[in-house]
Amino acid sequence: MRKAGRRAGDSGTREAILEAARSQFADFGYEGATIRAIAAAAAVDPALVHHFYGSKESLFAAAMQLPVVPSEVITGAISAEALRPGETLGQHMVRFALALWDTHEMRPFQALLRSALTSESAAAMLREFLAEAILGPVASVAKDSDPGQTPFRASLVASHMVGIILTRYVLKIGPIASASADELAAAVGPSLDRYLTGDLR
Amino acid sequence: MRKAGRRAGDSGTREAILEAARSQFADFGYEGATIRAIAAAAAVDPALVHHFYGSKESLFAAAMQLPVVPSEVITGAISAEALRPGETLGQHMVRFALALWDTHEMRPFQALLRSALTSESAAAMLREFLAEAILGPVASVAKDSDPGQTPFRASLVASHMVGIILTRYVLKIGPIASASADELAAAVGPSLDRYLTGDLR
Repeated sequence: MRKAGRRAGDSGTREAILEAARSQFADFGYEGATIRAIAAAAAVDPALVHHFYGSKESLFAAAMQLPVVPSEVITGAISAEALRPGETLGQHMVRFALALWDTHEMRPFQALLRSALTSESAAAMLREFLAEAILGPVASVAKDSDPGQTPFRASLVASHMVGIILTRYVLKIGPIASASADELAAAVGPSLDRYLTGDLR
Repeated sequence: MRKAGRRAGDSGTREAILEAARSQFADFGYEGATIRAIAAAAAVDPALVHHFYGSKESLFAAAMQLPVVPSEVITGAISAEALRPGETLGQHMVRFALALWDTHEMRPFQALLRSALTSESAAAMLREFLAEAILGPVASVAKDSDPGQTPFRASLVASHMVGIILTRYVLKIGPIASASADELAAAVGPSLDRYLTGDLR
């Protein structure tokens, strides 16, 4: 059933499927997009999509792992070597996240969040994605005398950044949307530093 | 100006007004919509709209099925009299917001946010509404030697709270969702205090 010129297992085919999935999820939301439509948009058989990715939920999770932001990139971004002289980790994280969003397409994030507001399974998907791609690496730098506290620290950082991203890029709340990366790094960085290593009680 | 068969106070009239309000807010944004135009669309006298709903903000809250009128709640939340002994304003704001969400239905908020993620006109509506209903009261306590800085302070508070609410109640990110109000107030309160009155440069 494959179209001429495409080989199953081909990384080009996988990428075409993920690309089609991102586009369909962005246009129709999690519940509205179908494997059939995604397969059609990628010019492959639906069975091939099932073969590579299993369920729609697995495909969704794979498609929304922004290819330019694997967790290794985040791990690199939060490593001490990436810091400018005099810059704190919190400031660096703000600057890094804003640079990422300033240079990339926001639609997959919006689609993901929209789906999470609609469906508990999509919320679970985003939760799992955040846990794997963001909380893990962030937790690795939130060294704590009480390791039980580390997930709480990482999730406070994620919470704050989600709020900043949402109000700056989606809601476009004036002062947050128009602030420079330096202004936001100076304002928000110390909060993140406190969440990572400060006293939270 | 009422349609035949409608009695003032009639639930049908109220529903017609809310329906007209939803449509006008969606088409013209929060600032662009007027009580006069909403009344005209519902074929009632503007005085009746004022009689039923008071301000434009209250009408918006009713039309969007928000369980509370935000500026009333926020004004109460940020009054100094509401503070417990030894509690900072930032801690109080966190505790207050969580108590509000713990006792009310989240769905209207989710619906509003979902619309904002889908449509630029809905995002504009929510943005304008937040600016008036939330940033205003918060700005009133963010006293600043540089008044030009006040909207930035208020929007940082709003950004952080949006992130906390979203990750705790919608995404249900483990450590944020399971933390007690006291734990979150202790962790997040100092960030809000700094945004309100600290040095942000």
